[in-house]
Amino acid sequence: MLNLENIADRIREAIDGENDKALKEILESYHCADLVEILQELKPEERLIAFKAIDEDKAAEMLEYAPPQLQVEILSEVGEEQAARLIMKMPHDEVADVFAEMEEDDTEAYLNKLPEKVSTEIRELLAYKEDSAGGIMTPHVLTVNKDMRVEDVVAFIKSKAEQDEFELYYLYVTDNQKHLLGVVSLRALLTKPYKTKIEDIMTKDIVKLHIDDPQDAVADIFMKYQYTALPVVDLYNRLKGMITWDDAQDIVEEETTEEIYQTSGISTDLVDEDEIIFGSTFDAVKARCPWLFITLLGEFIAANVADKFENTLNALPIIAIFMPLLAGLGGNIGTQSITLMTRGLSTGQVSINSALYHIWKELKVGLLIGLLFGAMVSLVTWKWQNNLEFGLVVGAAMAVNMTLAAFLGTITPFVLKKIKIDPAVASGPVIATTIDVLGLAIYFSLVTVYLLKIV
Amino acid sequence: MLNLENIADRIREAIDGENDKALKEILESYHCADLVEILQELKPEERLIAFKAIDEDKAAEMLEYAPPQLQVEILSEVGEEQAARLIMKMPHDEVADVFAEMEEDDTEAYLNKLPEKVSTEIRELLAYKEDSAGGIMTPHVLTVNKDMRVEDVVAFIKSKAEQDEFELYYLYVTDNQKHLLGVVSLRALLTKPYKTKIEDIMTKDIVKLHIDDPQDAVADIFMKYQYTALPVVDLYNRLKGMITWDDAQDIVEEETTEEIYQTSGISTDLVDEDEIIFGSTFDAVKARCPWLFITLLGEFIAANVADKFENTLNALPIIAIFMPLLAGLGGNIGTQSITLMTRGLSTGQVSINSALYHIWKELKVGLLIGLLFGAMVSLVTWKWQNNLEFGLVVGAAMAVNMTLAAFLGTITPFVLKKIKIDPAVASGPVIATTIDVLGLAIYFSLVTVYLLKIV
Repeated sequence: MLNLENIADRIREAIDGENDKALKEILESYHCADLVEILQELKPEERLIAFKAIDEDKAAEMLEYAPPQLQVEILSEVGEEQAARLIMKMPHDEVADVFAEMEEDDTEAYLNKLPEKVSTEIRELLAYKEDSAGGIMTPHVLTVNKDMRVEDVVAFIKSKAEQDEFELYYLYVTDNQKHLLGVVSLRALLTKPYKTKIEDIMTKDIVKLHIDDPQDAVADIFMKYQYTALPVVDLYNRLKGMITWDDAQDIVEEETTEEIYQTSGISTDLVDEDEIIFGSTFDAVKARCPWLFITLLGEFIAANVADKFENTLNALPIIAIFMPLLAGLGGNIGTQSITLMTRGLSTGQVSINSALYHIWKELKVGLLIGLLFGAMVSLVTWKWQNNLEFGLVVGAAMAVNMTLAAFLGTITPFVLKKIKIDPAVASGPVIATTIDVLGLAIYFSLVTVYLLKIV
Repeated sequence: MLNLENIADRIREAIDGENDKALKEILESYHCADLVEILQELKPEERLIAFKAIDEDKAAEMLEYAPPQLQVEILSEVGEEQAARLIMKMPHDEVADVFAEMEEDDTEAYLNKLPEKVSTEIRELLAYKEDSAGGIMTPHVLTVNKDMRVEDVVAFIKSKAEQDEFELYYLYVTDNQKHLLGVVSLRALLTKPYKTKIEDIMTKDIVKLHIDDPQDAVADIFMKYQYTALPVVDLYNRLKGMITWDDAQDIVEEETTEEIYQTSGISTDLVDEDEIIFGSTFDAVKARCPWLFITLLGEFIAANVADKFENTLNALPIIAIFMPLLAGLGGNIGTQSITLMTRGLSTGQVSINSALYHIWKELKVGLLIGLLFGAMVSLVTWKWQNNLEFGLVVGAAMAVNMTLAAFLGTITPFVLKKIKIDPAVASGPVIATTIDVLGLAIYFSLVTVYLLKIV
């Protein structure tokens, strides 16, 4: 683990002492991925000085590891001259991603500074939706002909390497019209005899992405099939580019973030995931209100249920003080069950076929925890309020409420999945308010039936 | 997307009609990763018949894609004979993972059936902790000598490929005592002249894993440096194996699951993540009780606060019916803020340096949403209870409560991070009860001060 504070201090010292050689030496000694973390530890003005002291090739590579926010900040800080040079050194799909984060005017200004061949290619990438396979892919793919032999391909790669930047994971075999025919692994290239025809070693059953595939589908396909790179084709099976596993990993992370957001009732349908944190206040409000509003409706129903027990409340107002206890613990155990099931359904660990097993298991867990917590609550309430019957009623309500919450939290994701609604999106807020409503009804009913008679 | 139900129906038809040829044809036409999903769609007895109809090489490869639970189930169903054959065809690190999931007696039975060379290697892997780099790595790594030339290495790979199974991502350069000296990419091997000495093209600054590194560190290093494979060394820098990106991806998924569990108050310290879903009821209870217990303590404090306002409650019991409304919405918006910050801190999108920006932003969001929802609640309560003042007090409490909840939900993860406590673990349950306590105190105070005077 890097001691970021310590490294940042050493950099500050070098900057303050205007010791350029020391500064360069410190920065030189870290991996690009480390430099990203180190720069984030610095203040903006220090960061700019440090960034400018990094060798420019390394600086461009470092930008590839940086989160979009930081990429845009750094490029706008270094000035147009250096920014243009850095952009020229970066892979075009990365540049397109950076541009997609910028204001349109800035993007145009940069594009006009680049050589036409480069800017045309980037414009083409920008034309694809940012969160589609086309928007993620790199167009730089080495293609070979099925009639070539292994030795020809090796010679071809050697010649290409001198003149061009490209990533090498697989070789794609295409015909003259760029139709994708097959895939050859580097392993095959290295292990098969030199005279072997490519046609004989290529895989014809190809897992491929379509250029319009949304990014969640891209993430799922990478996670499922576990290739280091996948080809991207258009409607006519013409090869347009490839997506590599490191870009896929970023998408998987983004998709996971969306899943986590949705579970907490933050909608990513209306506002981009990045914008919720770094965008306008209005956008953030827009992403967060829908489920809060549904909670509001649910809780008004809860208030209405409580209102129906007005006489009970009037007769025994003290019962109100245990409402948060019941709602809080019911909500918590329900959320636990929802989380286990929705995450399991999302990773494939839990399947709808095994629903009965999980419902039965969670019912047992809920009952056991419910009895345990019900007993504790009974005891404390009895001693505190000096009233055994009251303690028993609160404890019984707790036990029933927790068992019910675990049960509902388990069954709901399966039901939603069955009717083709994403359980991650809908389970949380719906269940929380349902538990509040039912929990209150149970508690007040118990109080009305058992306690009012006694007191 | 596969239509799993449809495929399963076709398989059932073939099984019922005892049409073995049709069954084999259907199964042959899908990728191993697809077969995993298809088999999960089938009932256990159908699954066994279908699995036995898959070509055995493909069946072994399929098992690599299957979740641990399914691997163990299938291997125990097919009988010892076929299980042993399948195990022989699987990479040894995968086999060790499967064995780690099994009962010890079963593991021993299988190990005794395997050739001694294989069983010794698997025993060695089993000796490493399952969730350490040693437990994840494959020991099959191609190593070369620094004095070899590119052409020698290519010839060496060709000769090895004929006699051995190995994964090819990088070549590792070691000395006679297996000390790791450098790394050569396949790209370098394919693009550099044949006569180049390996020493001249190897990277000496190597990102490597230590054999005892815990799996969360392994996941972090893969996510950060984005290599397709990383070497694993012992204390003396001797190469022991490598971890490939597909295994790393599984770990990243597991670590994400743990993060999600912890956010919902499910502890993964005491019980393995898998065991919480598939283990004993007692284990599940153990994993879920700690944070529920902390919630219980917090909610007793809330009850105590409410109890302090006994006179207010006695004078105006109706106020109780809005308690769930306040607690529910405060809890929800607070959870949203916590989720945004803890996930951001975990992915690096949010850093502690930008804490002030986020706190200020969330405060604005909380205030805006608080005012909006406060206004709605005021209006509804006014009309419903036919009491403007009551409506205003409930609305005001709602506005203050939501703003405060957003603020606390934002600031807490930063504070925890600063004092080196994992925000994902501690934020949720602590905040939820804090908001309940403060929300109640605010609501009852407002009622006492403004409402009791009026009514």
